[in-house]
Amino acid sequence: MPVRILVTNDDGPFSPGLRLLYRAVKPLADEVLVIVPETPKSASGLGLTLHKPLRVNEIIIDDMRVLIINGTPSDVVYATLSLYGGSLDLVASGVNLGDNTSVQVALASGTIGAALQAALAGVPAVAFSYAGTDPADMEREDVVDMVVSFSRKVSGWVLRNGMPPGVDVISVNFPREPTKEAEVVPLAMRRFTNLLVKREDPRGVPYYWLYGQPVDPEPGTDVYALLVEGKITITPLSLRGLTAPLEELRGLIDELKEDRE
Amino acid sequence: MPVRILVTNDDGPFSPGLRLLYRAVKPLADEVLVIVPETPKSASGLGLTLHKPLRVNEIIIDDMRVLIINGTPSDVVYATLSLYGGSLDLVASGVNLGDNTSVQVALASGTIGAALQAALAGVPAVAFSYAGTDPADMEREDVVDMVVSFSRKVSGWVLRNGMPPGVDVISVNFPREPTKEAEVVPLAMRRFTNLLVKREDPRGVPYYWLYGQPVDPEPGTDVYALLVEGKITITPLSLRGLTAPLEELRGLIDELKEDRE
Repeated sequence: MPVRILVTNDDGPFSPGLRLLYRAVKPLADEVLVIVPETPKSASGLGLTLHKPLRVNEIIIDDMRVLIINGTPSDVVYATLSLYGGSLDLVASGVNLGDNTSVQVALASGTIGAALQAALAGVPAVAFSYAGTDPADMEREDVVDMVVSFSRKVSGWVLRNGMPPGVDVISVNFPREPTKEAEVVPLAMRRFTNLLVKREDPRGVPYYWLYGQPVDPEPGTDVYALLVEGKITITPLSLRGLTAPLEELRGLIDELKEDRE
Repeated sequence: MPVRILVTNDDGPFSPGLRLLYRAVKPLADEVLVIVPETPKSASGLGLTLHKPLRVNEIIIDDMRVLIINGTPSDVVYATLSLYGGSLDLVASGVNLGDNTSVQVALASGTIGAALQAALAGVPAVAFSYAGTDPADMEREDVVDMVVSFSRKVSGWVLRNGMPPGVDVISVNFPREPTKEAEVVPLAMRRFTNLLVKREDPRGVPYYWLYGQPVDPEPGTDVYALLVEGKITITPLSLRGLTAPLEELRGLIDELKEDRE
């Protein structure tokens, strides 16, 4: 059976991270599909486009054939899965410019959203993110080396072994400065505080920007390992884990029953 | 301390479900803020609007003062939390027209997204959804009775008891036909298959619709209890549960270490 990998992202076709991930996985597969949102779709989470139709176009970037879709990363995965059915062996999402650590960021991230969307269909999925803010950093030779070789190792391991039991997505974050140190760590709860910045337009009408300040990272979390310790972080994600233990709602159910009696 | 509740949704200000939820929680609070996306934002997940500014406007619907924001449900919660800080006692999201069952739908749902966004800030949050497809159903007297009385009970219980340990959001789904039977059930994995429908525009250029067919519901899941058994379903959600057990990646870490030696 030929090995087929989908490479997608949430930064669109011109992200340097897309080329890095393509380079990383190309030797692992017989066919690498590169399909991405037409425009950057950061913070789109698992959003799907159900109310308007999608268009697909093709562009060539260097040696890479890229299909672009006017939708979200989840749209891309959804559409690709319906075209290729069970014959995708891996979805590799990224490499995102900016880290995707913490539950707060993971659930809003289009990069991780694409991977979760693949996992829902039972396709192994890995999300990759880089904790820099300047696209030029992702072209530094030492950064390229770290990202390409590590992404290839993780993707190759998943292709050979499948996802471990109870793991639906593996999320990898690279620190800004290259390292070989990697650690498996849980998601922190939060990465940013919630801020709202008020401005006035030239007509005097107010508008608002959502904004956040980094929170103090808690040791033992992905945010701490990545940003304070400068390690590569690897975090397994679980879809079933989204349901909390049912017995915790016994008190509520008892009260509802009493009301009915 | 006065009790303050935020009511929001992903169907926008004119959804009949919004009025039902307002009616349900009004007697429980000293102040009920109603703040919603300007236009329907179904399937926006936890998407945030970071790249453009937000506008806020006020409208009055019956006796309800509604602030509308040109963003997603998560934007609404994010903005409200930053304005009111820790002084929100409950976020009630919904009542969504259409059920929000399964991991697949929960993670894409703006209704549940708003509740998860609140939970990230430590604010108790409950999401409500109704398994009908016709807005007129939500004005049927027996449906109104079920939704208002049950939503009030659940919201009141959370206000009195707080969220149980390990539970971040409670998601409630009402069946199309009124009942008093309620059950605590886990999320199914999927609700729909992934389909893509191809059409051609008048110029002969193809476009695509994302679409899905319901999957056969699995007994013991929220989808089954709601759609087959016709029960009200209550599902506790956990943010920490999103991290899978770390030891499952031991094989990967061992291999990465060998590579370095």
